[in-house]
Amino acid sequence: MKNSFVIKGHLCQTKNPKELDLHENSYAVCIDGISKGIFEVLPEEYAELPLYDYGDALIFPGMVDLHVHAPQYAFRGMCMDLELMEWLNSYTFPEEEKYEKLEYAEQAYGIFVDALKKGATTRACIFATRHRPATELLMELMEKSGLVSYVGKVNMDREASEALTEDSADISAYTTFGWINAVKDKFLHTKPILTPRFIPCCTDKLMEELREIQMAYGIPVQSHLSESKGEIDFVKFLRPENPFYGDSYNEYDLFGKNDDIDTDVKTVMAHCVWSTEEEVELMHKNGVFVAHCPASNMNLTSGIAPIRKYLDKGLNIGLGSDIAGGHSESIFRAITDAIQVSKMYFRMVDEAFKPLVFSEAFYLATKGGGAFFGNVGSFEAGYEFDAVIMDDSVLAHPQPLNLAERMERAVYLGLDEKNIVAKYVIGTKIL
Amino acid sequence: MKNSFVIKGHLCQTKNPKELDLHENSYAVCIDGISKGIFEVLPEEYAELPLYDYGDALIFPGMVDLHVHAPQYAFRGMCMDLELMEWLNSYTFPEEEKYEKLEYAEQAYGIFVDALKKGATTRACIFATRHRPATELLMELMEKSGLVSYVGKVNMDREASEALTEDSADISAYTTFGWINAVKDKFLHTKPILTPRFIPCCTDKLMEELREIQMAYGIPVQSHLSESKGEIDFVKFLRPENPFYGDSYNEYDLFGKNDDIDTDVKTVMAHCVWSTEEEVELMHKNGVFVAHCPASNMNLTSGIAPIRKYLDKGLNIGLGSDIAGGHSESIFRAITDAIQVSKMYFRMVDEAFKPLVFSEAFYLATKGGGAFFGNVGSFEAGYEFDAVIMDDSVLAHPQPLNLAERMERAVYLGLDEKNIVAKYVIGTKIL
Repeated sequence: MKNSFVIKGHLCQTKNPKELDLHENSYAVCIDGISKGIFEVLPEEYAELPLYDYGDALIFPGMVDLHVHAPQYAFRGMCMDLELMEWLNSYTFPEEEKYEKLEYAEQAYGIFVDALKKGATTRACIFATRHRPATELLMELMEKSGLVSYVGKVNMDREASEALTEDSADISAYTTFGWINAVKDKFLHTKPILTPRFIPCCTDKLMEELREIQMAYGIPVQSHLSESKGEIDFVKFLRPENPFYGDSYNEYDLFGKNDDIDTDVKTVMAHCVWSTEEEVELMHKNGVFVAHCPASNMNLTSGIAPIRKYLDKGLNIGLGSDIAGGHSESIFRAITDAIQVSKMYFRMVDEAFKPLVFSEAFYLATKGGGAFFGNVGSFEAGYEFDAVIMDDSVLAHPQPLNLAERMERAVYLGLDEKNIVAKYVIGTKIL
Repeated sequence: MKNSFVIKGHLCQTKNPKELDLHENSYAVCIDGISKGIFEVLPEEYAELPLYDYGDALIFPGMVDLHVHAPQYAFRGMCMDLELMEWLNSYTFPEEEKYEKLEYAEQAYGIFVDALKKGATTRACIFATRHRPATELLMELMEKSGLVSYVGKVNMDREASEALTEDSADISAYTTFGWINAVKDKFLHTKPILTPRFIPCCTDKLMEELREIQMAYGIPVQSHLSESKGEIDFVKFLRPENPFYGDSYNEYDLFGKNDDIDTDVKTVMAHCVWSTEEEVELMHKNGVFVAHCPASNMNLTSGIAPIRKYLDKGLNIGLGSDIAGGHSESIFRAITDAIQVSKMYFRMVDEAFKPLVFSEAFYLATKGGGAFFGNVGSFEAGYEFDAVIMDDSVLAHPQPLNLAERMERAVYLGLDEKNIVAKYVIGTKIL
C-alpha cells in the first residue's frame, strides 16, 4: 500500500490542550496516509512495513497555519512602524499590485512556497491577491510542494488602490466563478477558498454575489474580523445596520453554520482581537474558526485577542502567522507569541483570564487549527499523517533534558529548516 | 598601528533615537580600536591603511546586552509556564547550584560564551552565580572570546535554596573581596561588577558590606528592580522603611550618582517594569541605567515596562536578553520585542505613550546600552570600534530593497551566527 510505513523516534503531541502526550523511542504507524496511532512496542501486524528510525530526533505533528498572505512574504519584517489601515495603503496594496504580472508572481510565490515547504508547516489557509492568473500559479506551486492548503483569490471591489480594486462587483464575482471552476478539481491537496478581503474592501453587492458562489460550490470561506480599532470603526461607518462586525459576514451566510438555511459554511476568521460578546456568541454557535495571529496583532498595534476566553467558551481556534503583519512564517514562533501575549493580557488587562500554557498553545498550532482540515494535527488513530522530524542536537546543553523540556525548547528556540530532517504530509515524504 | 584599518560596506546605525543613519558603500575607519567616523569617499590620510571590503554586506555597530544570566543559558526556552518567584525556586536556583562544580561550569559556560561570541553581541553585563571559582572561570572564557563584559559574582545570603544561599553576609562579602582583588586587574576586556542578586536575597548587613566594597573599589553595580508584582510585595514586606524598591539600593549608595557623598556609582538595574514616579525620578537624578528586557517580562508574566515614558524623561536605557527569563540571547530579538511590547502598552494600557519605532529600539540596543561601557554603539568619531558584518543574501526577495528595509528586515528576521561574516570588538577581529 502506498504511503504505508512506520517511523520511530520521540513522538511529541497534544491530544488535548491540557497536557503534553509524549512517547520516547516509540513507533508511529502510517497506513495509506492515515495514522494508526503511537505504539511503545510495534504490533506484529505492522512488522512487515518499512521502518524509518529517526533515532534521537523529535517528531511533532505538522504545524497548521490558519492565516497567511502569500504575496506579503516579500516584505515581511519591514515597514513595521504603522498601524493596519495605514500599513495596508502604504505598503501592502502597492506590493500586491505587482501580482498582476505573472513573472513577478512566479518569482515571489516561488520564494514563499519554498520557505513554507522547508519549515515545520504542513497545512495552510492562504490569501493570494485579487489576480486570478497569479492565484492559479500559486496553487500550482503549492500543489507541487506537497503541502496541503486552501488558497483564496481575493475579492475586493472598493477602498483599495485603484490598481488593486476590481472594476466592479460583477467582475469580481465573474472572475471568481471562472477561477473556482478552473481549480476546484485540478489539484489533490490545494483547494479554493472564498476570500472576501474584509468588509471595508467588499461592497454589499459583491458580498451578495459571493453568497451565491458559496452556495453554488459549497466551498469554505476565509476573511478578517475585528482586527483593529480603526478598521472596526470603518466597518461601523460602512454598515451601520449590523450590530457587530461579524454580523456583516453572517448576513450573507458567509459565517459558519446557518441553521436557518441549513448550510454549514466552513469559515475561518483571522484575528478577532476586539470581538464583542455577541460576535463571540455567534462564532461559537456557527462553529467559526478563529485564526489567532499574535505577532501580527503586536506588530500592527492591533491589540491582544483574549484567547483564554475563547478557549473557555469552546470556540474553534488555530494559529496564524499572518505574514506580513506577522514577520515570521514559523508556527513555532506563533506558539510562543500566543503564550506571551496571553501573559500580557492577563497581567495588563484582565487577571480573570489565565495565561496559556505551553501545551495549550501547541494544541492550537496542531489539532486546533488542524480541525479546519479534518482529522489533522495528531498521531492518534484516524488522523492524517503529517509529521515533522527535527534534530535538536545543534542546541548544546550541559544537563540532561527530558522530552518535555526538549519539546518546549525546540519551539521556543525556533528550530527551523536547518534542523528539519524529514517531513511527511498525509504519509508522503516531502522532505 | 595595531587595530587600524578601513572597512567598506553598507553602514547602518542610529546616532540618535529619532532616525536611522545609513551609508551605502561607505568607509568606516578604525585607528587603534577607535572609530574615526564614516566616509563616503575615503580621506587621503587613510589611504595606506588595510582596506577590508565587505561588498554588499550590512555593517551594524555591535549589540549591547545590558542584562544576561550566564548560568541560565542551559535552560533557556524551557519551564516558561511560571511567574518569577516560582520560576526562581523551581528551576533557576536548582540549576545555579550546579556551578559549585567547576567541571559543570566549564561545560555550561563554554556553551554560553560560544553562543555570545558567534552572535551579534559585542558587550554584555553578565550575572554569574554566587560561586567565586566558577565566576572567575566565566571571566576567563569571556576574556578569551574577545568580547567586552562586566561579570558579577552574585551576592545572596537569604531566601534562596540552602545550597545556593551564602552562609552569612560576612562570608558573602569576604568572598567578594577576594574575588575582586583576584580579577580586577587580570583581564583587559572583562571587569568585575558588584552584583547583589536583588533585595529579597540580600540581608541589610550584606548590603551594608557591599556598600563598603563598592566604595573601596569604585566598581559598578548591577541588580534587579521592580520586575514583578510578587517580588515588589515581598520587598515591601522585607523593607517597609523604604518608600519604594529602588530606595533600598540607594540607601546603601548602590544606585547611581550620589551627590551627598560625592560618589558616582555606575549602576544598571534590570526590568523597572513597575517603577513608581518617585523611583523613576531618583533613577533619572542618579543616572541609573535601565536594562529593558521585554522577552523576559513577557515570559515571566511580569508586565510591560513603560519605555516611552523613560525615554521622554531622558533616562539611560539599554536592552537586555535576560537569559533565561528571556529565551533568546539575540539582541536583534530584543529590539523587535521592545517595539512589540511598547505597542501593546500603547494599545492595551495607555495611549499617552506612543509605541517605539524601529530607530529608537535600535538605538537602545547600541548607543543606549553602549553608554554603560563609554563611547560605544556607533561608528561616530571617538567611539570604540565594535562592528558586526552580516550577509543578508540568504533572505531571498523578488523586489529591490533599500538599505533601511534591509536593516529592519535583518533585525526582525533575526540574522544570526550563520549570517555573520565578521565581527570586530574595539578594532580586533574576533570572527
